[in-house]
Amino acid sequence: MSLLIVGSLAFDDIETPFGRSDNTLGGSSTYIALSASYFTDPIRMVGVVGSDFGDEHFALLHSKEIDTTGIQKVETGKTFRWAGRYHYDMNTRDTLDTQLNVFADFDPHVPHAYHNSKFVCLGNIDPELQLKVLDQINKPELVICDTMNFWIEGKPEALKKVLERVDVFIVNDSEARLLSGDPNLVRSARMIRNMGPKTLIIKKGEHGALLFTDNGIFAAPAFPLESIFDPTGAGDTFAGGFIGHLSRCAEINDTEMRKAVLYGSAMASFCVEKFGTERYSNLELLEIEDRYQSFLDLSHVEK
Amino acid sequence: MSLLIVGSLAFDDIETPFGRSDNTLGGSSTYIALSASYFTDPIRMVGVVGSDFGDEHFALLHSKEIDTTGIQKVETGKTFRWAGRYHYDMNTRDTLDTQLNVFADFDPHVPHAYHNSKFVCLGNIDPELQLKVLDQINKPELVICDTMNFWIEGKPEALKKVLERVDVFIVNDSEARLLSGDPNLVRSARMIRNMGPKTLIIKKGEHGALLFTDNGIFAAPAFPLESIFDPTGAGDTFAGGFIGHLSRCAEINDTEMRKAVLYGSAMASFCVEKFGTERYSNLELLEIEDRYQSFLDLSHVEK
Repeated sequence: MSLLIVGSLAFDDIETPFGRSDNTLGGSSTYIALSASYFTDPIRMVGVVGSDFGDEHFALLHSKEIDTTGIQKVETGKTFRWAGRYHYDMNTRDTLDTQLNVFADFDPHVPHAYHNSKFVCLGNIDPELQLKVLDQINKPELVICDTMNFWIEGKPEALKKVLERVDVFIVNDSEARLLSGDPNLVRSARMIRNMGPKTLIIKKGEHGALLFTDNGIFAAPAFPLESIFDPTGAGDTFAGGFIGHLSRCAEINDTEMRKAVLYGSAMASFCVEKFGTERYSNLELLEIEDRYQSFLDLSHVEK
Repeated sequence: MSLLIVGSLAFDDIETPFGRSDNTLGGSSTYIALSASYFTDPIRMVGVVGSDFGDEHFALLHSKEIDTTGIQKVETGKTFRWAGRYHYDMNTRDTLDTQLNVFADFDPHVPHAYHNSKFVCLGNIDPELQLKVLDQINKPELVICDTMNFWIEGKPEALKKVLERVDVFIVNDSEARLLSGDPNLVRSARMIRNMGPKTLIIKKGEHGALLFTDNGIFAAPAFPLESIFDPTGAGDTFAGGFIGHLSRCAEINDTEMRKAVLYGSAMASFCVEKFGTERYSNLELLEIEDRYQSFLDLSHVEK
């Protein structure tokens, strides 16, 4: 089933207690697309890059059967850059540098051939741009959306308009509390679902994720990793595995939603094992199924 | 199967953002025993109270078929008292007052009739007292033990001697990190299990619990409550449900351990709904089974 992904493409300079990695391919849509590519095709990307985004980067995306005709290349500018340093506990990080570059003037243009996309995944970008994308798509079957504190605080009205048009909304726990103004996640979830999205996923990092639907709550565990090497992109990788699994389903129901959360969690657990996209840009399908089975086993109780 | 419980009996003055409750029956062994009483008998308690511990308090314990002949009553003293105030987020609390009273000179004496107890639950008390109890028991089938930061920091050598004789050790996440000296819970678990207990449970409060055995890791979700009224005793109630379920099993294996974690979680989720022991001193068995089923549903994924 056709999947359209919109978000940032970037180069990251990442520092963790275990080392550093410069000029690492990153960006929300990169992580989402690479993660989803293990589950479904065609995948279509809309985004913008500069002259420093070379053939080898396009080649990586193409090797995963990702259609990049929606990626605008601005030869007179440079790709979005982010630099950050993770603290010892890996739960907090400092942003050292942000250079929007060509992303500052990004005006998403969805190619005509993408207008019929059945699934749309709006990565974490300005909600006004997310709205512009939605305006260009013919009745998608499912729209999922990610955001961050920056937009919740900076563009609340635009974000609310996005939420009215979104089926699945993905946030982390602190973002959910910020958006609802309530410290309790169950009450927060009800308030956010009243803003539009029928399905809400609240990610809790090392404590797993909660899925809220009309049928109740699903609690997904996190994979108990002995070490986390680099958390960059874990949330986007989760979104990619989630939408990737749903895209291949004949019917989307509560069971498939729950499985999708576990596939998303499995992909995120690979992501943090190496720098950037390194670990999961060369995964075997069998590894993914093994990890998914490990997630099932983690919370399985025999009758 | 006979279950011996050793710990404190107390009166608590509890303040939460939702109100206050003075002279509330509390103490680790009270919570453990009342919780376990829904699952198994006979239950035997060893502890100490003062002259203020009245017939009505003994009557409550007797109404749950709890044998209190091991509770020493010191007519010249008063029962252990604790006063505390919970913060708005309910995850942190200030201790306002602690009066050890008769507990200061507690020298646990296990009645001869209890020496053959098959299950022993050592509530959170001085590890030197926990050792004294173990010295008085004939080969128990299963010993479970709780502790707290205070003893990890204050009596590390005695605690290590206890751990060598314990089958199941229950701590929360911060206690596990303190005991192991490692921030990662998976590595912490391995280090703590190397100290003696084959089975380790790490409680994570609103994020559920992790069970570590030779067969792997089980991740139990927490019940997504809309409001938490009073967290006092939740950890002891968990321990009571856990050991209570195991006590009624014909065979203790990994499946029953997993179920026991969920029964413990179910009992803890009742505990926090009202002040002190109020909510779960009058539970129906059907309510417990319903809540247990809710826990199963929370993380269930159809094949």
